[in-house]
Amino acid sequence: MQRYFISDNNWTKEQVHIDGEDRHHIVNVMRMTSGDKIICCNVDGSSYLVEITEITDDKVTGALVEALDEKQEMPVKVTIVQGLPKGDKLELIVQKGTELGMFAFIPVQMDRSIVKWDSKKESKKLSRLRKISKEAAEQSHRSKLPLIHEKHTLKEVLSENTYDHLFVASELEAKAPSEDGSFAEALKQISPGDNLLVVIGPEGGLSNDEISFLTSNQFKSIRLGPRILRTETAPLYVLSAISFYFEEWR
Amino acid sequence: MQRYFISDNNWTKEQVHIDGEDRHHIVNVMRMTSGDKIICCNVDGSSYLVEITEITDDKVTGALVEALDEKQEMPVKVTIVQGLPKGDKLELIVQKGTELGMFAFIPVQMDRSIVKWDSKKESKKLSRLRKISKEAAEQSHRSKLPLIHEKHTLKEVLSENTYDHLFVASELEAKAPSEDGSFAEALKQISPGDNLLVVIGPEGGLSNDEISFLTSNQFKSIRLGPRILRTETAPLYVLSAISFYFEEWR
Repeated sequence: MQRYFISDNNWTKEQVHIDGEDRHHIVNVMRMTSGDKIICCNVDGSSYLVEITEITDDKVTGALVEALDEKQEMPVKVTIVQGLPKGDKLELIVQKGTELGMFAFIPVQMDRSIVKWDSKKESKKLSRLRKISKEAAEQSHRSKLPLIHEKHTLKEVLSENTYDHLFVASELEAKAPSEDGSFAEALKQISPGDNLLVVIGPEGGLSNDEISFLTSNQFKSIRLGPRILRTETAPLYVLSAISFYFEEWR
Repeated sequence: MQRYFISDNNWTKEQVHIDGEDRHHIVNVMRMTSGDKIICCNVDGSSYLVEITEITDDKVTGALVEALDEKQEMPVKVTIVQGLPKGDKLELIVQKGTELGMFAFIPVQMDRSIVKWDSKKESKKLSRLRKISKEAAEQSHRSKLPLIHEKHTLKEVLSENTYDHLFVASELEAKAPSEDGSFAEALKQISPGDNLLVVIGPEGGLSNDEISFLTSNQFKSIRLGPRILRTETAPLYVLSAISFYFEEWR
């Protein structure tokens, strides 16, 4: 069934109002009419079976038929902190990360990021990333949209630190594994409901300054298998492994 | 250190000869000279530290300095059978699959594949995919190149069946999980050295005929978490989870 994420102020106790691109999609793409059913998700993560009751030029109105008890959200909240990569890799990471259950995403201009975002470019990029994430969330049947944050510095990420576990994906661990770098051991320390932060460097990896900063702030290096993963592959490995461990294994 | 995959007939007991694009890369891109060191991998999976001894217009000759004991290959051999997807998704799957340790790749024209490969298109596509895979194998420090097979039908895949375990990624399991569909339980049955085959449908999923054919041939449905993954995301989840389980967990 078609799924739409509707912002919080479009809901009443018994109805939901759908406007803008979602209205267009329902009316012109899906060609739905009164009586058709859809799923609507609120930003708070609740989702409802909705029956369309009225279609006007402005909006689609639907009646809340039933609150759904969905289980598509990861039991742990994974925030990916990604050093800005080249080209359209960020779009790939956000799309796949959304499918794979990512809770939030923070782009960081790192020392070795070749791409630079000025404020004009940033606002354009962010609205594109949020659109990609929304579409991926609808397609993958999520009930919650990932938060796509504005560009941060690493220091800003840490100053807003509300995380239970801090990890950094390490190329060094892949090349010369240490006992400390076990991703499996790291996951064993995590309980459902915990907040995780995972930092991933850009193409050239993290700089020595960045590594020092993270390790002095109690980040734990983790190994993502013995091969060297590209910057855009690392977050997909992290999220797949966490999904496997918390959603399939336990 | 720079890494090259060199075909079997270019090796002698003490030397390796490098020609074609790899010679060009060493001489013109990396601007290496006699005395410089590289890693050369044979198709059989062995790899050597090599010192360049001579550069001519035809080839680079290197002396085998030392056999390397590398551990970048997955302990289980995972073959991905992929229903032909649209656009350049196949390139993404082959590139990321190579980084994530895929042993072999078989493209299949499935009932719901929209793309059609004629024989001219196929040979062009395959050589492009093999080039992408070789580059990804070099970058990710693998010691073995994945086998990129020609287009098969599902029946042909089964007739060459030398696999210990047969899996099919199932969208149905994500929507309504069954006890049987546990990917974790499936992995527990696998031992290092085993051969696994994983079938993944194209954008529209597998047809009912294909599902019947696979289940009547003892394929086991597996669930890749509770979200619906796109066709190109499913193989990356499979390979990441297998890497995590066999290379990080055990």
